[in-house]
Amino acid sequence: MTLDLGPLPGVPGVRVAEATTEQVPAIVALLANDILGRDRESGVTDVYDEAFAALDADPTEHLLVLLDEQEAVVGTLQLGFVRSLSRGGALRAQIEAVRVSEALRGQGVGRAFFTFVIDLARREGAVLVQLTSDLQREGAIHFYESLGFVHSHAGLKLSLT
Amino acid sequence: MTLDLGPLPGVPGVRVAEATTEQVPAIVALLANDILGRDRESGVTDVYDEAFAALDADPTEHLLVLLDEQEAVVGTLQLGFVRSLSRGGALRAQIEAVRVSEALRGQGVGRAFFTFVIDLARREGAVLVQLTSDLQREGAIHFYESLGFVHSHAGLKLSLT
Repeated sequence: MTLDLGPLPGVPGVRVAEATTEQVPAIVALLANDILGRDRESGVTDVYDEAFAALDADPTEHLLVLLDEQEAVVGTLQLGFVRSLSRGGALRAQIEAVRVSEALRGQGVGRAFFTFVIDLARREGAVLVQLTSDLQREGAIHFYESLGFVHSHAGLKLSLT
Repeated sequence: MTLDLGPLPGVPGVRVAEATTEQVPAIVALLANDILGRDRESGVTDVYDEAFAALDADPTEHLLVLLDEQEAVVGTLQLGFVRSLSRGGALRAQIEAVRVSEALRGQGVGRAFFTFVIDLARREGAVLVQLTSDLQREGAIHFYESLGFVHSHAGLKLSLT
C-alpha cells in the first residue's frame, strides 16, 4: 500500500508518496540519469527488487517519490531515521539518493521536496537532518547550504568491493 | 543479552561486545569526554536510557563497546546498516559516535577497533562503509584516510532545534 503523503506545496500537480515495488524501475532510471550515477547502476532488475523488499521491510527507512498527474515518478529520495546516544540521545534524519527528473529541474521542485521532507523529519522528532554530497557536486552543496545545512563535516567512504 | 563479538585482535585483554543498558552511563561519559562532545551531552540519564532502548530494538543498529579485563567500557562506536536502491541496491554500513578512552589513545586501539568493524561490515554484506567526521577533527580525518577511507563527500548537517 502506498502511503500518500499528500500534495507537494508550491508545485501544482505533484504529490509525495512512499514508493511501491512497481515504481522501482522508474526510480533506478532516475538514479542512473546522472553524471555520477550512470556508472554505478546496472540493468539487472533483480538486485533492485531485492533491495526494495529489504528497504520496505525496514521501518526506519522510507523511499519517497514525487509523482506527477500521470503517476510518473519525477523525483526520489530516501529518508532514514537513526537513533544514537550522542547529542542527548538524539534522533537523526538522514537523506540519501536524491534525484529530480531533468524535465523538472530549475523550477524549485527540489527545494519544495526538501522543505517537505525536513518538515516531516521534524514532526517525527528528529533534531538533526544529515546528508553527504559528492564534493564534485558544487551546485548541490550550495543548494543544501541555501536550505540551512552547514558543511561542517568531511564525508568519508571506504569501498569494500 | 550481550552479543560477545570476541577479543579485539592485536589488543590483549580487550574484547568487543554489543552494549547493554548497564553500560549506558559509561558510554555517555566517553561521548562527553571530548572537545566537541562535552557541550552536547547532558547529565539527564533518562534520555539516554530511552535512546538506548530504541536503538537496541532496531535490528539495523548496533551499539558496540570495547571492554577491558575489568569489564570497563574503554571504547564505543555505533554501527548501522542502510539498504538503498542506489549503487546496485547496495547495503551500506555507517559508523557514528566513535570514542576510545583517553588512557588507551595512541596505542593502536582505534585502528584495531576499525579493522574489526570493517571486517564485520564486510561479512554482513556491506559494499561500502561510510562516516562523517567534523572538519575540526583533522587528526581523525587523517586516521580514516590511513584506513583507506576517501574524503570524497561534504558532510552537511541541518539542526532542527
